[in-house]
Amino acid sequence: MTVLKNLLTLAITFALAQSTVLAQGSVRDYRRAHEHEILSEFMELLAIPNVASDRENIRRNAAAIMTIMQRRKLAPQLLETSDPSVPPVVYGEWKTPGATRTLIFYAHYDGQPTDPRQWSGTLPWQPVLRSAALETGGKILSAPKAAEAINPEWRLYARSSGDDKAGVMAILCAFDALIASGVKPTANLKFFFEGEEEAGSPHLGEILQQNKELLQSDAWIICDGPVHQSGRKQVVFGVRGDANVDITVYGAKRPLHSGHYGNWAPNPALILTKLLASMKDESGRVTISGWYDNVEPLGAIERKAIAEAPQYDDTLRGELGLARTEGQGKSLLELINEPSLNINGISSGDVGALARNVIPTTATAVLDLRLVKGNDHARQVQLLIEHIRKQGFYVSDREPNDQERRLHPLIARVTARPGGYNAERTRMDLDVSVALVAAVQSTSQEVIVRLPTAGGSLPLSVITANLSTVTTTVPIANYDDNQHAENENLRLQNLWDGIETIAAIMTMK
Amino acid sequence: MTVLKNLLTLAITFALAQSTVLAQGSVRDYRRAHEHEILSEFMELLAIPNVASDRENIRRNAAAIMTIMQRRKLAPQLLETSDPSVPPVVYGEWKTPGATRTLIFYAHYDGQPTDPRQWSGTLPWQPVLRSAALETGGKILSAPKAAEAINPEWRLYARSSGDDKAGVMAILCAFDALIASGVKPTANLKFFFEGEEEAGSPHLGEILQQNKELLQSDAWIICDGPVHQSGRKQVVFGVRGDANVDITVYGAKRPLHSGHYGNWAPNPALILTKLLASMKDESGRVTISGWYDNVEPLGAIERKAIAEAPQYDDTLRGELGLARTEGQGKSLLELINEPSLNINGISSGDVGALARNVIPTTATAVLDLRLVKGNDHARQVQLLIEHIRKQGFYVSDREPNDQERRLHPLIARVTARPGGYNAERTRMDLDVSVALVAAVQSTSQEVIVRLPTAGGSLPLSVITANLSTVTTTVPIANYDDNQHAENENLRLQNLWDGIETIAAIMTMK
Repeated sequence: MTVLKNLLTLAITFALAQSTVLAQGSVRDYRRAHEHEILSEFMELLAIPNVASDRENIRRNAAAIMTIMQRRKLAPQLLETSDPSVPPVVYGEWKTPGATRTLIFYAHYDGQPTDPRQWSGTLPWQPVLRSAALETGGKILSAPKAAEAINPEWRLYARSSGDDKAGVMAILCAFDALIASGVKPTANLKFFFEGEEEAGSPHLGEILQQNKELLQSDAWIICDGPVHQSGRKQVVFGVRGDANVDITVYGAKRPLHSGHYGNWAPNPALILTKLLASMKDESGRVTISGWYDNVEPLGAIERKAIAEAPQYDDTLRGELGLARTEGQGKSLLELINEPSLNINGISSGDVGALARNVIPTTATAVLDLRLVKGNDHARQVQLLIEHIRKQGFYVSDREPNDQERRLHPLIARVTARPGGYNAERTRMDLDVSVALVAAVQSTSQEVIVRLPTAGGSLPLSVITANLSTVTTTVPIANYDDNQHAENENLRLQNLWDGIETIAAIMTMK
Repeated sequence: MTVLKNLLTLAITFALAQSTVLAQGSVRDYRRAHEHEILSEFMELLAIPNVASDRENIRRNAAAIMTIMQRRKLAPQLLETSDPSVPPVVYGEWKTPGATRTLIFYAHYDGQPTDPRQWSGTLPWQPVLRSAALETGGKILSAPKAAEAINPEWRLYARSSGDDKAGVMAILCAFDALIASGVKPTANLKFFFEGEEEAGSPHLGEILQQNKELLQSDAWIICDGPVHQSGRKQVVFGVRGDANVDITVYGAKRPLHSGHYGNWAPNPALILTKLLASMKDESGRVTISGWYDNVEPLGAIERKAIAEAPQYDDTLRGELGLARTEGQGKSLLELINEPSLNINGISSGDVGALARNVIPTTATAVLDLRLVKGNDHARQVQLLIEHIRKQGFYVSDREPNDQERRLHPLIARVTARPGGYNAERTRMDLDVSVALVAAVQSTSQEVIVRLPTAGGSLPLSVITANLSTVTTTVPIANYDDNQHAENENLRLQNLWDGIETIAAIMTMK
């Protein structure tokens, strides 16, 4: 409690000391007067399908963001690679006379792939407002009329409403609000909107290298991810690395009748279950040899920040319907500082109405490996491959040929998806880190949460590997936004709060 | 080799002694003169979608078969239940003056569900001829012109081309050929075409009970399933029982971002893999307690028939690309005399292009349990449920509610699909059994295969439980017909052979 009190005192001190209090009022007034326009601009952007591999639509998104930025006189341009099929970065900038600091505001406009059939009542790229979250009975609303008050508890349903077109909109609306209210930013501002983050940012490094001069900065402000589960704002100083791996195991060359051949012909679904089951113990700990080696332990400041963060695990367990969680009693905030292995999907044969009495020919899993500071993504994949070999598998990166089938009883095709990257962490005691925490705190009545790392991943190591700068993450979406899943949504109040947060950073001391 | 020689001598003796040799010649001549008509009639029937739950189309199939039978003056009628959504049996009969034996010829006109997207180049209900099997480079052929010779190695691709509209066609064409050639059947013939066999025949017992008088017979001839892998004709005196079970296990109530919650929120895909992996050992033996109890051992005649059957396992392993098979060295023919447990399908989250970094909310498997004489289908399901409980699961037959989620760390929803049934076996030394073997042998230059049981399942126990009769199975489809899977096909020579086989049985001594 003493810690909390001290922090609260600190927060109030900051809040009063900051001239941003005035700016915040102006920004809020501006937003209140323009909610309809903001929503309408946002919904237009959300209506454009935005999977990174959808070459045509991804460029429609970039063009739409260019238009929004032109309206704000941000001199937007596309940063391209030599390959026109690569989604471009949409870039713009604003020079502040006399400013000594340059901040780059980052968000991404691409979204995770999704199966429209899994959405309930709405479609991924047909943005719709609901009166509340679907899970709590939220009903679909007709588009609000010009005179109608907009309830901040409404939810906007669409792919990327939270992850991460919310980031794009919060950044551009915050800037808009400041300029319209006559409040001057305190830094030179640069705007960097990526178009293939959900595909693992395979060309981000190349684009950064090609634009080193253009992209000089003191810090990147990454506007992505959800706020804390308690609803408090947070500033996050690191992200986990990420690597995805596809695994396919093989049975007979053609599907077989399960009566005529069952329990004679090996079933790849069974082979896969035995393989996956060998990778983690009952407590969820990864059993792959060497998995937890090389982890850089947290320092004192980081451990303190975690200890001061709200402990939310019990509430979350209740809300998610979980009688137990993994990790042998460790908290969620502790566990995200460890490397993980997650099964994103498994498939073999069919279930449901299409299920039939066959022995499938293959079984497939997609794994998601999260990495923390000290892990190397290629090494983690290699440890996984070694583990599969130890289970007796012949491992290859392509379909087995007849000779391989003849020789090896157990065959696994294992391929790492392109775009794996390492974790990143910025020191919490840098000047810019302290200023950032103060700016975000100035917009909140509650003590904000500071975390050494988020559970999620962003290619921030790619940024610091290519540019001399640091990165920090300031998320704005509601934590229950179903990001990466069906029925993704944004609570409107989170967008309103996000606009104020970003405006405070643009005007921070 | 002595055994084989003796059998060959026996076969030749039979063949010469039978007046069916003459009938066979007439049937073959008739077929050769009518191949185009037979194929055209067959392809029309295959063009009607025939999943048992597809109420409208399943009745279109029944109506089409009625029409074919009316052409043959078989006085067809539909045997219905009181529920009009239940697929009807198409029934007809032919009285032979002076006959002392009555045979019922059975086939089913419904087919397994299938995903058209998994078919290669053709669609399930758009029948197409190929020059050979797809796997050996068979090309799609245009419909044969009237004067064009039909190659018996062509394959007819469509759902149910092998399983089991081939049976319907072989029975009706054999009858046609006999009558047109002036060859008299030696028995009263009854025709019984079922419409929900692939759904587990849930109403077969009811229909048999309601039509006990109509269905009096000495034996049922079940025309379903593939001939032996060697290509030899076979007569099978039993079938395995079958039960299907759906299992769903649960994670959090909503899909979660695998970065923010991975390795804290339990992953249902991992839970399912651990559960399924616990059900069988590395050799494929089922580890569920009591699984192999109650099996009635084979008698001497049955063991001898298995020993005399061609040993085809090595050839099959080579062809299917399997370096090893399950069963600790036992042969396929031995293993199908044991109860089995097969995974038909598993699914959780998505794989491939739709895969994304989430923790899925559920993971599902469909299991297929095969039963042999002595097993009870409800008991096997119960053993499975007990096993799941022993792994620590709370087992229910419906979605868990919030309280159940709070109380139980591991929850499995387990439901047996309707229509499970037991195995059936007919004595191989009955008069009708001996006559049947002789009749089928008379149509083949090779020694036919006799088996105490097939690996596949048919609801024959339902027949013997309701009617005083016996059942034997005379399959005709090629063994590589992909039945129950995508790209199902029938080799035309198998249909031509099947017509002769059935005609021989209709005229057997």
